[in-house]
Amino acid sequence: MRVLLVVADGMADRPIKELGWKTPLEAAEKEALNEIATMGVCGIMDPISPGVPPGSDTATLSILGYDPLKYYTGRGALEAIGWGLAVEKGDVCFRCNFATIDDDFTVLDRRAGRISTEEASKLAESLQKVRLSNGSVKFIFQNTIQHRATLILRGPHLSTAIGDSDPYETGKKVLEVKPLDNSPEASFTARVLNELLEKFHHVLRNHEVNRERIKRNLPPANIILCRGAGTIPNVKPLGEIYGIKSACIAVVSLIRGVCKIAGMNLLNVEGATGSLDTDYMAKAKVAVQALQENDLVVLHIKATDVASHDGNFYEKVKVIEKIDMMISYILDNIDHDDVYVTVTADHTTSCLTRKHEGDPVPVAIMGPYVRRDDVIEYNERSCARGGLGRIRGIDLMPILMNFIGKTKKFGA
Amino acid sequence: MRVLLVVADGMADRPIKELGWKTPLEAAEKEALNEIATMGVCGIMDPISPGVPPGSDTATLSILGYDPLKYYTGRGALEAIGWGLAVEKGDVCFRCNFATIDDDFTVLDRRAGRISTEEASKLAESLQKVRLSNGSVKFIFQNTIQHRATLILRGPHLSTAIGDSDPYETGKKVLEVKPLDNSPEASFTARVLNELLEKFHHVLRNHEVNRERIKRNLPPANIILCRGAGTIPNVKPLGEIYGIKSACIAVVSLIRGVCKIAGMNLLNVEGATGSLDTDYMAKAKVAVQALQENDLVVLHIKATDVASHDGNFYEKVKVIEKIDMMISYILDNIDHDDVYVTVTADHTTSCLTRKHEGDPVPVAIMGPYVRRDDVIEYNERSCARGGLGRIRGIDLMPILMNFIGKTKKFGA
Repeated sequence: MRVLLVVADGMADRPIKELGWKTPLEAAEKEALNEIATMGVCGIMDPISPGVPPGSDTATLSILGYDPLKYYTGRGALEAIGWGLAVEKGDVCFRCNFATIDDDFTVLDRRAGRISTEEASKLAESLQKVRLSNGSVKFIFQNTIQHRATLILRGPHLSTAIGDSDPYETGKKVLEVKPLDNSPEASFTARVLNELLEKFHHVLRNHEVNRERIKRNLPPANIILCRGAGTIPNVKPLGEIYGIKSACIAVVSLIRGVCKIAGMNLLNVEGATGSLDTDYMAKAKVAVQALQENDLVVLHIKATDVASHDGNFYEKVKVIEKIDMMISYILDNIDHDDVYVTVTADHTTSCLTRKHEGDPVPVAIMGPYVRRDDVIEYNERSCARGGLGRIRGIDLMPILMNFIGKTKKFGA
Repeated sequence: MRVLLVVADGMADRPIKELGWKTPLEAAEKEALNEIATMGVCGIMDPISPGVPPGSDTATLSILGYDPLKYYTGRGALEAIGWGLAVEKGDVCFRCNFATIDDDFTVLDRRAGRISTEEASKLAESLQKVRLSNGSVKFIFQNTIQHRATLILRGPHLSTAIGDSDPYETGKKVLEVKPLDNSPEASFTARVLNELLEKFHHVLRNHEVNRERIKRNLPPANIILCRGAGTIPNVKPLGEIYGIKSACIAVVSLIRGVCKIAGMNLLNVEGATGSLDTDYMAKAKVAVQALQENDLVVLHIKATDVASHDGNFYEKVKVIEKIDMMISYILDNIDHDDVYVTVTADHTTSCLTRKHEGDPVPVAIMGPYVRRDDVIEYNERSCARGGLGRIRGIDLMPILMNFIGKTKKFGA
């Protein structure tokens, strides 16, 4: 027996006046989702704890069974891993932006005019040649999409207890990186990073790509801004905890990073974009295939969250209907005596506030031996009356593993 | 957006035979409460955890979001603060009674015949002149209502790990205060307190007020009994946690103390008594006003608990109907697009056992964006079928703050 866990990012919502005080899930046509609710056991889930708005990273950690209060170490390392960088234990990772400053180090554009990935790649290549005065510390700098990049510091005596250089606002000066505690490691790491960022600035300032941009009246990408120092969370992989083989279908690097540290195999899907135009059916097909050789497959869809952050509830309803078609295909192509299909969201994203909110999310589990309840619709309100009651994110994985006989007895 | 949180002390109850096996809440006429249930999302709440009978202090800590298992430090300090005494960090506070003993130190009356507040004030004034042999320790002794009083010890090297002098029963001897651990601080504090109580006894024994009482055949208040050594809980104020301004409408000093350490503004209401004869409408009016300038207003009603401890379930039904009228006024005078109205109890008090019990309490939250459920009656049983499910006391404040956008995202 095996588990398919579909996580629709930010799918849960609050009632919306324009939808007749329904949530997007309530307003959507969704036969397949309702079938899962009807045939399954339903409930609501607090990804972290009641009322706490989760990030996608902490929520995913939680849904995979890792207490984020214990294991969360910041977004930097998770995203770097998600981008495929070989992050090692002890590495200090940062999220970075190519940005534009004036001669006075005042930030003019935190995204350097959303510089193209191509140009950013050329700049990043030149940055590889920078050498730190302290030979014991190595760095890996990798641009990702457009102005976004990742920096890793590797070496002995490093600390994550350092501040950001990113002032988070235009019109403010680039910050000197400061140690956040009194340890010699924090002072050392701050010193190293300040040196590195200054050397980066020297390379970027005079770079041909930037001279060309200035000619074309575009803001030069003349500085790297760093934020969110973090290391790898020290978690046991799912394989070790439950003795399972698992795979993840996700595009968003942060989610891929969390799944990677959980020891999951990261699958790639042609046509999956992590946005509204993603190829749902391509993802469905890869999921069905992956179930052949895995005990657990996590299928993550970002589009629901994208529509929510845009405040576009009509689009969100449409996305949910596409997810429903995707799930319909999956239900038609799996062995129902063998697969437990679970659908949930990693958090509530309100189309009204356009933010992650701390309201619970619906969850439904369909499979051969669940205690089917009376719920016949998949949405926030009807699932609240279901047989699972109100659970927490970290309870979900043990519940699923229990259904497929992968949990260990505690006691004799 | 803002929150009004109505806490009816001990309002929840068990089914009562004389009420046709209904609880007082089920038996009461309560249109306004039912409207909140109908328009809102309902649930049941374990103030501490399932089955644990809460005190009003631990329950209120919990409902304000502070884990009492972590922060509760005894009733003494909370009550002293509630009385308006300037308790400082490190102060050791006690709840005290004026009591009557015979020459053999056997307790004859733990309340000195419920001595009048006026007489107790005169006695307390004389006690101010007592001096401790160790000059580094100061004391503050303040009588409150009738036989009740508060004692604060202030100075270095004090400990709360000491026993009571109050034997809690008539016919038993006054206890010598003993240290409860092996620390020098506990021994020192016990020694200081024993000295102080002995000196108090000397002053009281020969006091004119007591000579007069004996003449009138009244028990003399010739000893101070101490219990419940405690310090201020070290909690972050709500303003710091959520960035809110908050106010509390309560008469009971213990509740006022808890709200004070949570950083709430304590409001006074003319006609509010903390008993059955309280002026409900006066409280309602102050609550409506307070909502103009606060993000959170807690409105506490003691009368439900008073009726319960009296075992008077008919009276309890009447009190609930008065609370309903109070809430009806509030609902008529607030902006429903702006205010989340929540009604709950701090614990179950059984009219039968006349004690706090560990049964869960009902909770209903009405407001613009709650996921309204099917519950249409406000009581213990119907709320158990609501969309909130079963929550814990410490979850309530994050849930409420989430609705008004005051919780911080955890993660990215």
